[in-house]
Amino acid sequence: MSRRINDSVFNPTSVAIAGVSPSNTGQLFLDSLLHHGFRGRLYPLNHKGGEVSDLRVYPSIKDVPEPVDYVISCIPAPLVPQLVKDCVDKEVKTVCLFTAGFSESKKKEGRELETEIRRLAEASGLRILGPNCIGVYYPKVGLSFALDLPQESGRVALICQSGGSAVYLLRAAAQRGVRFSKAVSYGNACDIDESELLEYFATDHETDIVAVYIEGVKDGQRLYRALKELSATKPVIVLKGGYTTTGAGVAASHTASLAGANEVWDSLLQQAGAIRVYSLEELIDTIVTFSFLPLPQGRRVAMFGTGGGTTVMAADECATNGFMLPPLPQDIQDDLRGFVATNAGTILGNPIDIPMRLGETSYNILRRLSDYEGIDLLVAQIPLCSLGFPLSDAYTLFDFGVDTIIRVHGEVSKPMAIVIHCITSGESWQVASNYLQKCCQAGLPVYHSVASAAKAIDRFLNYYESQPEKRKTLAP
Amino acid sequence: MSRRINDSVFNPTSVAIAGVSPSNTGQLFLDSLLHHGFRGRLYPLNHKGGEVSDLRVYPSIKDVPEPVDYVISCIPAPLVPQLVKDCVDKEVKTVCLFTAGFSESKKKEGRELETEIRRLAEASGLRILGPNCIGVYYPKVGLSFALDLPQESGRVALICQSGGSAVYLLRAAAQRGVRFSKAVSYGNACDIDESELLEYFATDHETDIVAVYIEGVKDGQRLYRALKELSATKPVIVLKGGYTTTGAGVAASHTASLAGANEVWDSLLQQAGAIRVYSLEELIDTIVTFSFLPLPQGRRVAMFGTGGGTTVMAADECATNGFMLPPLPQDIQDDLRGFVATNAGTILGNPIDIPMRLGETSYNILRRLSDYEGIDLLVAQIPLCSLGFPLSDAYTLFDFGVDTIIRVHGEVSKPMAIVIHCITSGESWQVASNYLQKCCQAGLPVYHSVASAAKAIDRFLNYYESQPEKRKTLAP
Repeated sequence: MSRRINDSVFNPTSVAIAGVSPSNTGQLFLDSLLHHGFRGRLYPLNHKGGEVSDLRVYPSIKDVPEPVDYVISCIPAPLVPQLVKDCVDKEVKTVCLFTAGFSESKKKEGRELETEIRRLAEASGLRILGPNCIGVYYPKVGLSFALDLPQESGRVALICQSGGSAVYLLRAAAQRGVRFSKAVSYGNACDIDESELLEYFATDHETDIVAVYIEGVKDGQRLYRALKELSATKPVIVLKGGYTTTGAGVAASHTASLAGANEVWDSLLQQAGAIRVYSLEELIDTIVTFSFLPLPQGRRVAMFGTGGGTTVMAADECATNGFMLPPLPQDIQDDLRGFVATNAGTILGNPIDIPMRLGETSYNILRRLSDYEGIDLLVAQIPLCSLGFPLSDAYTLFDFGVDTIIRVHGEVSKPMAIVIHCITSGESWQVASNYLQKCCQAGLPVYHSVASAAKAIDRFLNYYESQPEKRKTLAP
Repeated sequence: MSRRINDSVFNPTSVAIAGVSPSNTGQLFLDSLLHHGFRGRLYPLNHKGGEVSDLRVYPSIKDVPEPVDYVISCIPAPLVPQLVKDCVDKEVKTVCLFTAGFSESKKKEGRELETEIRRLAEASGLRILGPNCIGVYYPKVGLSFALDLPQESGRVALICQSGGSAVYLLRAAAQRGVRFSKAVSYGNACDIDESELLEYFATDHETDIVAVYIEGVKDGQRLYRALKELSATKPVIVLKGGYTTTGAGVAASHTASLAGANEVWDSLLQQAGAIRVYSLEELIDTIVTFSFLPLPQGRRVAMFGTGGGTTVMAADECATNGFMLPPLPQDIQDDLRGFVATNAGTILGNPIDIPMRLGETSYNILRRLSDYEGIDLLVAQIPLCSLGFPLSDAYTLFDFGVDTIIRVHGEVSKPMAIVIHCITSGESWQVASNYLQKCCQAGLPVYHSVASAAKAIDRFLNYYESQPEKRKTLAP
């Protein structure tokens, strides 16, 4: 019988951190928990004792006078077996090992250390997360591994073998409006592994969508079953790190993973009904799409934006990813022409290329397009630094444009997406960030290129087109 | 006999701007010329007369008391034929028509207007750039179509059918350290076209590399000859807008272009010896590579950076684009190990995953790698927002890392590139921008993802691998 994650992995009533000293990683974990308002009791551990952040520091887990559910280890690897033994004695439920230097080191000592702690865990009720992982982010209860992650909860879960990639994904997705129910980085997976986590999220009522970064797997059969079971009820988006022979070799050094052949992964993921992506950016784009875009009825896109060249290339990107930009019927073209004072430099077909000076013109055009049943999806594109104007003027213009698009999005049920692109300097990224924030608050899916939007929305449509039974139960 | 661009296209001694009124596009052209210190005389035109920016405004080109070489038109399309006639009378050499509303409007009036001005040009010595174009940027003499373009010159020429894309490309490439000799946006190409421009740059001593954005062409034979001739002496990087049927339809509305089948373009570009790319970002990445990267001897990469997951995915991206990450021989591994205090959480194979805390450790590692003849190219990757640290700490750390990489780059002849990625917020883009600037000043090629770096460097190597004769004459 497979083991099941105990409640303390996500809901510890008390957390101890082994190896807290000024400005080390232990201190960072402590700061993150305090900053996120962790609800339970906190016990920093250091053999020197003392006090930190108004908390008493205990020399060892054994000295803590009360029960401890969850221990985060930031001590060196050779000291970990003793810590695990002490945790077993103390009846700790879960140890999260940030500590690295185990099987991923490819050294005999490291492998032996990992075998030793695995045996200790198997022989007791203790569960181990990691080693070589950053652990759990669960904003609802204030569990976090970094200071600057959102404190609000969402409906997306992240299972991420790599700790650094987990931090980046959470930060980057947060910028795009995504909030997470829970995130787990599980490193070498010496005990709790990807399959067990997938099984957990299949029944987690706080999670609607699951994103996965995985480097390797020990039990392919169990992974397949877990993925298939989870995919039956929730969209699962999977990024497989180490899909080339070269990358697989690195994965062995990173998380001691057997990466497996790319073709095997391809058919495993497809048969399990999961969605495969190939980069962190694609993973984020796909999460954004499943989180915010209502399911379009088909692939007929109307593209709305400014700039002839961008418009031509936008059309190419849509077509390349399986979308059509049907010509607009004469009556709609006539209506659109009625909204626009002058025609020079504008394209009123599909795509539409129009200066965004006039909020009311843009509004009328977008409303007319959204009413037209020959279009399944409206995509607006804001090419921030591609006008001859001084950039400050362009920022103001496009600010109007973004407001108008958000206004229409709030009024119509037609699926809409926005692309904010052609960004150049740090300053223009700052401006783009502000637009982004507005769009996110309005629940409008935002992308950074037409290509990435088209690719993600194509995956979204493919998912429901190839598994029509999910359209009824899972479609947004 | 084909016509040849006259000197006034790039070296006018005097410029008139038709249709200057407060805060319109004519004013913008005037401001740009003043800001860039245009060396010749300037004549704003407006039928109301008056004065602007301390310059007398003449009611018409006919009223200008001195000869005028070059006229920029920002007046409505129906008024353009009269302007062109006046220019012929005045013996103006070139008219640049920013004015749109000609054949690209798909309307009879627009087509007729374009035919009329083409005939006027053909019957006289007058040359027309455009219509529907943003014209010429030639920083050396102070010609510019936007305020915020670099005033310094470089060795890259840009031929860009789309005006907005020209502005964006120049701005974005400038952020990556690229400076241009000349840039020309040529719109509908009713007279001066892409072929003539390609012919011009074949003999332009200020240009080493030519980047092209092209939507369509009228004379395929001439284009092929021009491309082939230019490619024989300079790398030519071509982005074809409207390469899908959908995009081609839009190109017809944008610049009245016959876009042509994608397969035809593919073989035309290949046979001409040009380099084909598929997006503005790829175009910039490829320009950066040809501008700054010394030609690697082969495809053996050493990857250096921080973060296990990023390192695994970096290896995948390299392998996908035809690069090898050969394992390091034992003696080098031993040397590297000697530089590093502790091994936990580091990967000292290839790729190398190491915290960038210690500038001296990174320096020693990079120097050792650059001395090793089993490696053709060193790629460093800075995953800005992928550490659990507070971001401000990460910024400081990576700042050290970037300095170290720049230092090594300045000392060794081994080809090196840097990837600054995993950027999330506007603030982190600002930080990345600062790193970028440092790298650009040092002549280090910078990319925003390992995938885009690998793709661009792959194109660079392919170019010389498939045309070995160019290795002798053109290779950097």
